[in-house]
Amino acid sequence: MKAEIIAVGTELLLGQIPNVNAQIISKALQEIGIDVYYHTCVGDNQDRLSDVFKTSFARSDIIILTGGLGPTKDDLTKETVSNFLNLPLKADEHSLDKIKSFFAHRGKPIAENNYKQTLIPEGASAIENKNGTAPGVLLNNNGKIIVMLPGPPAEMEPMLKEVVIPYLSKMCNATIFSRVLKFYGIGESDLEEKLQDLIAQQTNPTIAPLAKMGEVTVRLTAKAKNRIEAQEIIKPVEDEIIKRIGSFLYGFDDDSIEKIVAQLLFNFNKTISIAESCTGGLTAHKLTNIHGISQRFDRGIVSYSNRAKHELLQVKLDTIRKYGAVSEQTAKEMAKGVRLSSGCDIGVSITGIAGPDGGTHEKPVGLVYIGYSDSKTTYVEQHFFNGSRINIKERSASSALHLVRKMIQGLISD
Amino acid sequence: MKAEIIAVGTELLLGQIPNVNAQIISKALQEIGIDVYYHTCVGDNQDRLSDVFKTSFARSDIIILTGGLGPTKDDLTKETVSNFLNLPLKADEHSLDKIKSFFAHRGKPIAENNYKQTLIPEGASAIENKNGTAPGVLLNNNGKIIVMLPGPPAEMEPMLKEVVIPYLSKMCNATIFSRVLKFYGIGESDLEEKLQDLIAQQTNPTIAPLAKMGEVTVRLTAKAKNRIEAQEIIKPVEDEIIKRIGSFLYGFDDDSIEKIVAQLLFNFNKTISIAESCTGGLTAHKLTNIHGISQRFDRGIVSYSNRAKHELLQVKLDTIRKYGAVSEQTAKEMAKGVRLSSGCDIGVSITGIAGPDGGTHEKPVGLVYIGYSDSKTTYVEQHFFNGSRINIKERSASSALHLVRKMIQGLISD
Repeated sequence: MKAEIIAVGTELLLGQIPNVNAQIISKALQEIGIDVYYHTCVGDNQDRLSDVFKTSFARSDIIILTGGLGPTKDDLTKETVSNFLNLPLKADEHSLDKIKSFFAHRGKPIAENNYKQTLIPEGASAIENKNGTAPGVLLNNNGKIIVMLPGPPAEMEPMLKEVVIPYLSKMCNATIFSRVLKFYGIGESDLEEKLQDLIAQQTNPTIAPLAKMGEVTVRLTAKAKNRIEAQEIIKPVEDEIIKRIGSFLYGFDDDSIEKIVAQLLFNFNKTISIAESCTGGLTAHKLTNIHGISQRFDRGIVSYSNRAKHELLQVKLDTIRKYGAVSEQTAKEMAKGVRLSSGCDIGVSITGIAGPDGGTHEKPVGLVYIGYSDSKTTYVEQHFFNGSRINIKERSASSALHLVRKMIQGLISD
Repeated sequence: MKAEIIAVGTELLLGQIPNVNAQIISKALQEIGIDVYYHTCVGDNQDRLSDVFKTSFARSDIIILTGGLGPTKDDLTKETVSNFLNLPLKADEHSLDKIKSFFAHRGKPIAENNYKQTLIPEGASAIENKNGTAPGVLLNNNGKIIVMLPGPPAEMEPMLKEVVIPYLSKMCNATIFSRVLKFYGIGESDLEEKLQDLIAQQTNPTIAPLAKMGEVTVRLTAKAKNRIEAQEIIKPVEDEIIKRIGSFLYGFDDDSIEKIVAQLLFNFNKTISIAESCTGGLTAHKLTNIHGISQRFDRGIVSYSNRAKHELLQVKLDTIRKYGAVSEQTAKEMAKGVRLSSGCDIGVSITGIAGPDGGTHEKPVGLVYIGYSDSKTTYVEQHFFNGSRINIKERSASSALHLVRKMIQGLISD
C-alpha cells in the first residue's frame, strides 16, 4: 500500500506555520506498516490543488489530505476532490445536527457558510470532529482510500488516531517496527564503510544511518506480521552491527547522552560537579534536563574569567600564565578543582575557544579541552570542532558528557 | 517568479524529523517577494526524485532542493538533478581543498565517499558550507534557478541567508520588507485587544502577532518598490503600536533578550554574574551565546544543592531552613552572594521548582523566584510558569534576563 499526504493551505507556503500534520500522519502510518512516498503542500487554489490531487491519485493507493475543510470560500478541499471524482456533495445529517445544536447552544443563528462544512462527497463517511466544527471525510473509491482531515493538528490528530488508523490497519496485515542504535566517536562515512556490505544487501530490515551533531544513529526498520516477528528480524542485523562497531555504541531508541550519564551516575552511585568555560553553562543545562538529577549533580561552575577559574576552582594563576586558559593543564586543574571543592566523586571540565573571535594559529577557534577527574585518575581529551559558536558549544558539551560516560564505563584507561 | 521547495530524505517520510527547511525557506522567499507554490518531500530514491524534479522543472522558475548532499550512497540529489539536466558532475576545487585540509587537520585519510561531496554539476557554483562538509549548489539553467542545500537546518540556513537569498533578491524588483516588534510582559490576547482596530484594517503593511515562550512579537510586512518606500509604509503603524503598548517593547527584528542584555551591559559598563538553581546553567548558556560577552560576564554558579548555595553564594543555612531553597529570601541572598563573591556590579539569581516532581500545595511545580542585586538595590520577582520541565527552565531563564534588562533600564524601582 503506497500512501501520500497532501497538506492544503497558503499559510504553509508562506512559512507561517510548519507542516506538523505530515510528520504526525507519516509516523502513524509507518507504525501500521504503510509506506508514505510523498508529502505535498499546496495553497488554497482550486486549479493547483486539482493538479496535485490528479498526480497523487494516479500513483498512490491511499491519499490523506489535511486542511481546507473550514467554512470560508478559501476552503476548497472537498469541492476539488468531489469535482475530480465526479461525486456530488451532500450534507451529512449527523454533522448538520451537531452544527445546529452548536449554534443553538450559543444562541446564535447558523452562519450560511457553516452548512458548507457539513457537505461530504456521495458514498463517503463523515469523521466526527470532537474538537472543532469541520467533520473529516473517509472515502473508498474503487479501492483507493481518500481521507480528508482538518488542518489544525489538535483537531486532526484525534480523528486520525481514533478513526483513520484503525480503519487502515484493518486493511493491512503487516506492522513496521524500528530500532535505533546510537553511536558516538565514529564519523558517518567511517560507519558506512564498516557496514557497507550490510547496507548494500539491506531489504528487511532496512538500515538507515543519520548523522547529527557529532553523533551517528542507525535505524533498523523491519516489516513483519507482528512486533515480535519484527524484533526477530532485526536481532541478527543489530548483533552484527554491534559486533563491528559496538565500541562506539552508547544507547538505543530515545536515549540521549544526558539520560545515559544520569543513569550511570545512579547505577554506580556517583555524584558529579561540572566546571565549564566556553560552554557557558550548557553542559550543566543538558544534564539538569533529566529530572531527579538533583540527587547526583551537586553544582556547576561557569568559570568564564581567569579569576573565576582561580577563585572557585583553585586553578593556579601560574598554570594559566604558562599554558593559557585553554590548555590541557588548565582543563586538568579545573576538573580536579571542581571535584575537590564540591566533594563530589567526579569532576568534569570544559575549556576552549567557541569563537567567532579569539582564535590564533596555535589555538584556533574550535579547540576545546575536556577534563575528567575522580579519586583515581585525571584524564584530558583534546578536540577540534567546526562551525558556529553555538555549534562548538553544543559539540563540546555533549563530548564532555560522553567522556564522563566512557570513564564510568571503564572504556578509557589512563 | 514561481518557486517551489523539494525536501529529499526518507527520514521525513517516516515522520522521524519535521520538514523545518520548507518553512525556513518559504519565509525567506516571502520576505523578498517570491511566491512559493509547492512543497514536496520525497525519499532517497532516484526514480521518484527524478519524477518529482521533472514536474517541478516544468512548472516553476526557482527550485530549491534540500537534503541528499551527504557522502553516502543514499545521497542522490546532485546525481539525479545532473542526470535530468544532462550535466556532468565535476569536483569543485575549493570544496576539495577544504575537505582535504579538514582531514589532514585530524591526521585521518579522506574516506573515498567524501570526494563525492565535492562534486557539482558543470556550470554551477558551489555554495560554501561553513558548518559541515557538503557544499551547496547554485545553478542557472537557461533562466531556471536550481539550488541544492544540505538537509541539516544548521547547515542549510546560513547558506540560504548568506548566499541564496541575496542572489535571488537581486533578480526581483518588488521587495517585501518586514519589521518585527518584540514585547515581553503582555499576553497575546491582551495585545490583540489593544491593536484590534489596526489588525482589522490591515492591508499594507500586514500586522501579524505571534506568541512564543512568554514573549509576543508583532511582524509588520510591507510590499513596495524598494526598501525605503516599504519602511515609510511601516513607520506610522509602528509608531501607533508603540504609542499603545510601548511599555512592553524590548527589541526589534532579530534582537533576543540575551543580545539586549549584553548591549546594556556594554553601554552601561556593568559586569554581571549569575547564580542559578532550577535553570541548571541555562541562563548563563543563553548569555554566553553572545560573542564578546566574556568582557562583561565573569561567572555563573549552578548551585543545585543547598550546600552549594551556602558554600559558593553564602546563603545562610538558616534562611534555607526557615524559608526553603525556593523562596524570596533565598533568591535575594543568592543574587547578593554571587555579586559580592564575584566582585561584579550585578548579581542575578533563579531558584524554583522545574518539576515534574517536587511540587507541594504551597510551592507548586512552576513556582520560580528571580532575584537581582546591585550596589543600590535588591529586588525579587515571583513567577508561576506552566508546562514541562524544559519549558519552565526556558521561561525562568528568559525572565531572569528580562529582569536584568528592566533594572538596568530603570523600569523597576524598588
